[in-house]
Amino acid sequence: MMDRKKDVRRLNIKTDCIDMTHGAGGLASVQLIEAVFAKHFTNEWLDVGHDGALLPPIQKPVAVSCDAHVVSPLFFPGGDIGRLAVAGTVNDVAMCGAKPLYITASFILEEGFPLADLDRIVASMAETAREAGVAIVTGDTKVVEKGLADGVYVVTSGIGEALTSHPIDGRQARAGDAVLISGSMGDHGMAILSCRENMTFGTTIQSDAAPLADMVAAVLAAAPDTRVLRDPTRGGLAATLNEIANQSQVGIVLDEEAIPVKTEVAAACEFLGLDPLFVANEGKVIVICPAEQAQAALQTMRSHPKGKDAAIVGTVTADGAGVVEMKTLMGGRRMVDWLNSEQLPRIC
Amino acid sequence: MMDRKKDVRRLNIKTDCIDMTHGAGGLASVQLIEAVFAKHFTNEWLDVGHDGALLPPIQKPVAVSCDAHVVSPLFFPGGDIGRLAVAGTVNDVAMCGAKPLYITASFILEEGFPLADLDRIVASMAETAREAGVAIVTGDTKVVEKGLADGVYVVTSGIGEALTSHPIDGRQARAGDAVLISGSMGDHGMAILSCRENMTFGTTIQSDAAPLADMVAAVLAAAPDTRVLRDPTRGGLAATLNEIANQSQVGIVLDEEAIPVKTEVAAACEFLGLDPLFVANEGKVIVICPAEQAQAALQTMRSHPKGKDAAIVGTVTADGAGVVEMKTLMGGRRMVDWLNSEQLPRIC
Repeated sequence: MMDRKKDVRRLNIKTDCIDMTHGAGGLASVQLIEAVFAKHFTNEWLDVGHDGALLPPIQKPVAVSCDAHVVSPLFFPGGDIGRLAVAGTVNDVAMCGAKPLYITASFILEEGFPLADLDRIVASMAETAREAGVAIVTGDTKVVEKGLADGVYVVTSGIGEALTSHPIDGRQARAGDAVLISGSMGDHGMAILSCRENMTFGTTIQSDAAPLADMVAAVLAAAPDTRVLRDPTRGGLAATLNEIANQSQVGIVLDEEAIPVKTEVAAACEFLGLDPLFVANEGKVIVICPAEQAQAALQTMRSHPKGKDAAIVGTVTADGAGVVEMKTLMGGRRMVDWLNSEQLPRIC
Repeated sequence: MMDRKKDVRRLNIKTDCIDMTHGAGGLASVQLIEAVFAKHFTNEWLDVGHDGALLPPIQKPVAVSCDAHVVSPLFFPGGDIGRLAVAGTVNDVAMCGAKPLYITASFILEEGFPLADLDRIVASMAETAREAGVAIVTGDTKVVEKGLADGVYVVTSGIGEALTSHPIDGRQARAGDAVLISGSMGDHGMAILSCRENMTFGTTIQSDAAPLADMVAAVLAAAPDTRVLRDPTRGGLAATLNEIANQSQVGIVLDEEAIPVKTEVAAACEFLGLDPLFVANEGKVIVICPAEQAQAALQTMRSHPKGKDAAIVGTVTADGAGVVEMKTLMGGRRMVDWLNSEQLPRIC
C-alpha cells in the first residue's frame, strides 16, 4: 500500500523495541500498525485505515463499556494483559444483558518495550476476540518515554446490543431472588499475586480470564427474568454484592459452604491473609434471578465449560437493606463489609 | 447512596492526592468516583452506576473511534488533556461523516497525582462534552505506582451515527476534487512545544483544541458529496494528506500561498526548524469535496467561529498517485513527503 516504505528499515518483530517515533503519527507509526496490529486484527472495518470505523446500525438498545488495564505482570498463568483486556470488556458489555459486537483498543507503550512482547499481546487479543465473537474495529497507539509506563497499558471499549427488553443492572435485585455464581472465587487475583510473589502451592494457580458472552446469552434464554448480571472483578464477590445491595436497597445473605473456592486458591489466600471473597475474578459471573428460574440458570451454566462449578450461593432479602451477610461454616453469621483499603493493586 | 461511607474519611479535593486504594475497586474507588467523576459527568446513563451503559438504538450506521492521550504538559495555553481527549474523540467520529453522541473515558492515574488537578481535567472534559453535544456515559479508573505514569493518561472512545449514506473516508478522493482546510496549521503542536520550551514569540500561542462536530455537520449539509473528512492531528497536514493520497491512489497538489499559518506559529516553527505542515492540529478539519461544492463548503466553514480562516488549499490530481506536492511561494514545486522520524513526541 505504501510506496516509499522501501526507504525505511523494516521492523524486526523479534529484536526491535518501541521507540518514540512509533507514537509520532508518521511513517514509523504506520509501520508499527501494519507489522503488528493490522496483521492480527484484520477485519473489514479496521482495514479501511481511517481514524474511526463505520459499523452497521444497531437496532436494539446499545450497551457500552470501557476499561483501562494496567495489570502487573503483563504475562501470567492463564492469560496476559491482552486476553484480560478483551475478556474484561466483552464481559462488561455482557453484564448489561447484551451481546458484545465490537471492541476498540488503545495502547500506551513505554519506550524500549520489546516488539516481540507487544506482538504476543496483540495476538492474544485477536484470539480472545475470536473466542468471544467480537471484532476489534479501531485502535490507537501512543508512546511515552522510558519509565513513564510499565511496558504497556491496554485500554479497551466495548459495544453490544441488548438481548432483553427489561433493564439488567444493579438496581433490579428483589427480595426472594436467588444469587448464583458461575464458578470458583479468587482465581485471577491469586494467579497474579502468586506470580508476583513467586509462590507455588503444589500447583500453579491459573487466572480464569475469559470472555463469558455466550454463557451469559444462554443464561438469559434459560432465565429470562434475570435481574442482575455482574462480573466480580476488582474487590471480588464481596465488593460487587455490596454495590448491588446498596443500589437495589436489599439485603443479601450468602451461604459460605456453597461458595466454590479452589484448594490452592484457599491455601494462597490463607498464607497471605486474604479473603477469597475480596479477590478479583476475570471469568466469572454473578447472576441474580427470581428463585423459580434459579435451577434453569444453574443447569445452563453447569452445562457450559466456563460454568461447570456454578452454584446457588445466596438469597436476596427485604431486611438489612444495603447489607451483605454470610452464614458461616461454623453456623454463625458475619457481615461481609466493603473493602475499606487497598487489597491488590494492579490486578487488572 | 452509600450507608457506611461515614466510617471513612471524606476526600478533600483541594489537598488530597491519588493513592493506590483509589484504583482497587473498593470503597476508596467509589468515593473518588462520587467526589470527582459523578459530580461533573452526571447524566441518565452514568447515574445507573453499572460497569457499562445501556443506550438507545442507533438506527443509522454507527461510527466508532478511540484515542489514548498522553500529552505533556497536562495543562497548556488553550486547553488541557481533558479538552484534548473529548475534542479529539468527538472529531474522529465526526471525520467518519457522523454526528458524535457518546463518549467513554478511562483514566490511568499516577499515585500522588493531586485531586485538584484531576478535578480540573474532569471539569474541562464535562465542559467540552457539553460544547460538543455528547454525553460521557461510562468510565473506568486505574492507579499505577508513582513513576509509572506522568500524572494522568486519558483514554476516550466515541460513538456516533452517520450523517450521510455514502462512505466518507481516505479512499474516496478523486481527481478534480478540491482540498480545503478549516483554518491555520500548527497551532496545537506549537502551543505545546512553546509551553515545554518556555518560549514566547510576542504572544502566547494557543492550542486550537476544539470539538468540530457541528461545523462538520454544516459542511456535509452544504457540500453533500464530500468525499473525505480528516483532522490533521499527529504528523500534521502533510502526513494526513499523504495517507489520503495513498489510500485513494491520487496525487494532491497544494498551493503554499493559500495555507494559513499564524505569524507567531510560523516564527516558532522557524526558530525550532520545524515545518508547520508537519505540526499537529486539534481543532481543524481537512475537507475534500467535488470542485463544484468547494465554495459552499468554504462559505459554511467561514461563517462558523471555528472555521473563519478556512481556505481552499489544493487540488486532487490523477497523476502522481500517492504523492503530495506543493506549489511554493517561489513558484517552484516540492514534494511534501511522509514524516520519516519523530518530530514531536507526546503532542496529544
